[in-house]
Amino acid sequence: MKEPLILIVNDDGISAPGIRKLIKIMNDFGKVVVVAPDGPRSGMGHAITIEATIRCDKVIIDKGPQTEYSCSGTPVDCVKLAVNQLLDSKPDLCVSGINHGSNSSINVIYSGTMSAAVEGAIEGIPSIGFSLLDYDHNADFSESEKYIRKITKRVLDNKLDPGVCLNVNIPKTKEGEELNGLKVCRQADANWEEEFEKRTDPKGRPYYWLTGIFVNYDKGTDTDEWALDNHYISVVPVQFDVTAHSSLSSIKSLFDE
Amino acid sequence: MKEPLILIVNDDGISAPGIRKLIKIMNDFGKVVVVAPDGPRSGMGHAITIEATIRCDKVIIDKGPQTEYSCSGTPVDCVKLAVNQLLDSKPDLCVSGINHGSNSSINVIYSGTMSAAVEGAIEGIPSIGFSLLDYDHNADFSESEKYIRKITKRVLDNKLDPGVCLNVNIPKTKEGEELNGLKVCRQADANWEEEFEKRTDPKGRPYYWLTGIFVNYDKGTDTDEWALDNHYISVVPVQFDVTAHSSLSSIKSLFDE
Repeated sequence: MKEPLILIVNDDGISAPGIRKLIKIMNDFGKVVVVAPDGPRSGMGHAITIEATIRCDKVIIDKGPQTEYSCSGTPVDCVKLAVNQLLDSKPDLCVSGINHGSNSSINVIYSGTMSAAVEGAIEGIPSIGFSLLDYDHNADFSESEKYIRKITKRVLDNKLDPGVCLNVNIPKTKEGEELNGLKVCRQADANWEEEFEKRTDPKGRPYYWLTGIFVNYDKGTDTDEWALDNHYISVVPVQFDVTAHSSLSSIKSLFDE
Repeated sequence: MKEPLILIVNDDGISAPGIRKLIKIMNDFGKVVVVAPDGPRSGMGHAITIEATIRCDKVIIDKGPQTEYSCSGTPVDCVKLAVNQLLDSKPDLCVSGINHGSNSSINVIYSGTMSAAVEGAIEGIPSIGFSLLDYDHNADFSESEKYIRKITKRVLDNKLDPGVCLNVNIPKTKEGEELNGLKVCRQADANWEEEFEKRTDPKGRPYYWLTGIFVNYDKGTDTDEWALDNHYISVVPVQFDVTAHSSLSSIKSLFDE
């Protein structure tokens, strides 16, 4: 069998420990090409660069068989550039992460990591976003590794439904602690109750910092938040058809003459 | 009945003709507060500003009863700031646009206009994104107006299902031409076949411009692309639960031991 071509992207930037770990793991699965932002792009969602130019240069960050490109654009730009400009053939797999911090429930919408995986799916590539629930730059990815290997192998062997990618979130573990396994689940109905911190600059003008508290409204035991709270890895299949199919008839009746 | 509080946002910037037109229309429906980016933010998707500060200042752009704020952040930042910082009560309606250009089918994912409407829905506000299929700065919004009024009235009178907002796209018309009406439809399976134009800067280093051709793969007659091609206004109910519910069982079987 031909060696799989694996595209790696993230939103924390090409030098983040999470993507360095993911590159090491993926080098065991196939030929790896990294196209990642030149610095942090958290919270970029599905942003693309349409009014400005994009830089994308080949770089060597550390030793290994992978090829790497550092890109001035967004995580989604990285996927588009890889597929349409840098690679000779379509990747067999697109993996994004490992994100430093959660992308569960509503965070999937804001996440550059997950938007890159969704863009992979839009391009017809089996795609997975991996996130560890630890914002620390020096997070410990060791317990994550065996699950990332298992999920990657299953997806390479079986592909995914067209138009669907995976949102994988991994609880933070203490040293020696083991996770309970993996749960396939739905996105919880959770949200940020936001507040802004209003400050005044040295010239007396106001400015704002976004802050917020995460609130899970969902009592279901089939959600990603439930799984993570109970020390399971959550796997949510994510689609880019955002039509609210179950509301089509009520909206139709709204506009009946 | 209390006068409705209407939040207006967009992604083309607070001085774009599309939002100025929308403000004029909405002033007839209630008390209008505008919180819009200080310049163009097209293609920003659901980006939020988490690593930087946000400016947001009260401004007067043109005469009228509306209150207006110009914001340095993304369209989604504008909605968050409005709801959590600037307004005393939750808006009865959030309208985004009128966008200069299409946000049909896959464009809903990249669109700052639609992401602002989705953020409105996340905040529990009945929300609508309006887009005209004309990228021209001086686009003619006159034929759009009666449909925007009709849709706004229906949504104010009836609300929307929780977690659902509307993606309204309006075909470009020639002078005197009438549209065929309004179709409630699903997001078409369409995509951009992207290419990048590679150029060389004056110092000899490469850079890229994103370009692309829009391709509709969907032969259905129940899609937004079909409606627009046939001179109907398309109305797609959009949700932020992106779980691929129909793939849950196949993904579960993928990970059975």
